Amino acid sequence: MNIVITSGGTSEYIDKVRKITNSGTGKLGATIAEAIGTKHNIIYICTPKAVRPNIKNVEIIEIVNTNDLKEAVEKVLTTRKIDYFIHSMAVSDYYVDFVSTAKMIADELNGKDNLEDALRNLSNVLDNSNKLSSSEDNLVIMLKQTPKVIGLIKKLSPDTKLIGFKLLEGVEKEYLFDIARKLRDKNDCDYVVANDLKDIKEGNHKAFLINKNDDILEMNGKENIAQEIAKIVNAK
Amino acid sequence: MNIVITSGGTSEYIDKVRKITNSGTGKLGATIAEAIGTKHNIIYICTPKAVRPNIKNVEIIEIVNTNDLKEAVEKVLTTRKIDYFIHSMAVSDYYVDFVSTAKMIADELNGKDNLEDALRNLSNVLDNSNKLSSSEDNLVIMLKQTPKVIGLIKKLSPDTKLIGFKLLEGVEKEYLFDIARKLRDKNDCDYVVANDLKDIKEGNHKAFLINKNDDILEMNGKENIAQEIAKIVNAK
Repeated sequence: MNIVITSGGTSEYIDKVRKITNSGTGKLGATIAEAIGTKHNIIYICTPKAVRPNIKNVEIIEIVNTNDLKEAVEKVLTTRKIDYFIHSMAVSDYYVDFVSTAKMIADELNGKDNLEDALRNLSNVLDNSNKLSSSEDNLVIMLKQTPKVIGLIKKLSPDTKLIGFKLLEGVEKEYLFDIARKLRDKNDCDYVVANDLKDIKEGNHKAFLINKNDDILEMNGKENIAQEIAKIVNAK
Repeated sequence: MNIVITSGGTSEYIDKVRKITNSGTGKLGATIAEAIGTKHNIIYICTPKAVRPNIKNVEIIEIVNTNDLKEAVEKVLTTRKIDYFIHSMAVSDYYVDFVSTAKMIADELNGKDNLEDALRNLSNVLDNSNKLSSSEDNLVIMLKQTPKVIGLIKKLSPDTKLIGFKLLEGVEKEYLFDIARKLRDKNDCDYVVANDLKDIKEGNHKAFLINKNDDILEMNGKENIAQEIAKIVNAK
């Protein structure tokens, strides 16, 4: 079988030296790959600093931002038969549309009827963010939504089994389950791993595995999460 | 002697999972520490993922953002006699003031006379960025200037020798020197290491050491830069 695992956290560059990064060490993705082992062909799509699995014969595809990820996923799903897609990467929901200053923006908005539209369309009128120096007293960054990569997977490859991941922060368990079910139903996930940042601390990592029948399995620790996912893959 | 080396790149958090990071691996700072060696007491102020020097008895102080750095520098300079301060860390010039959306901003700006002031003061009227979900179709981040840590050093400790660093991108050499001299004169640096991102590629790193007499020394490679800085320190 061919199994794709995405791992790490994407970065969107603001300029050549500054970037917006999603936290994601790649430790969980690497642990899942190790639990699945070398019986299957693992294609590990990861960010440059993501932890790599400590097993042989893993194909590594390195990406930086969400657009790279989208291209890599499209390529792999349209050229190869993928049996499982385990999407554990922390993907940026936004990319950098423009960088400007309060003064430049105010100058552009002045006299406009629809400030919201004018603000959204500023990237068309600002000539170049390269003019900004590091000594501006403020910077304004407009981010726009990236395409949702998870939504592409079943569209491009309906027979691939998809395991999605949902991370929220400081919410009630029922709310977390609710959002995880929505992710599952919207993207036709076969399973979703739902977790809350408050339950991820040094050494521990509580998460819930939710299937299509709404069965919920509580897991504790990255090893345990990885073993449960490996069980699903190996059951096929 | 006590020698402070700052190393790595600071991060400013947007929320619990997203951050703006300045590129800076810490490799140069670590190489400088190794070149100076164990004859002196090195206090290595660095970011969590910065490369650590591979020598014994280095004091490590870990910081994340610019404000942490400022506090650490104030503490070390006011409580200990520091002979050299080698400020090679890539420090964020900006922190996150608020995160909002084009719609929320437009609603607040509507009807205001002075759009620039209104935009600058938005953090006072937005109740909380925690309300933003990852499915907003855009996000607007306002960044404000951080205090310049390099400006504090001679103010707090006039007898400390200061080596500043200036990184620009894709500029003429004379312009780079000009900006480096301005940094030196403004902050009373004894030396400035001036470099251009275009001259920093895998394996190579060209930089210029500029002293108070405007002598300019070209250096090639992190080892060479580190050796020249070690020479200055050891000459005392």
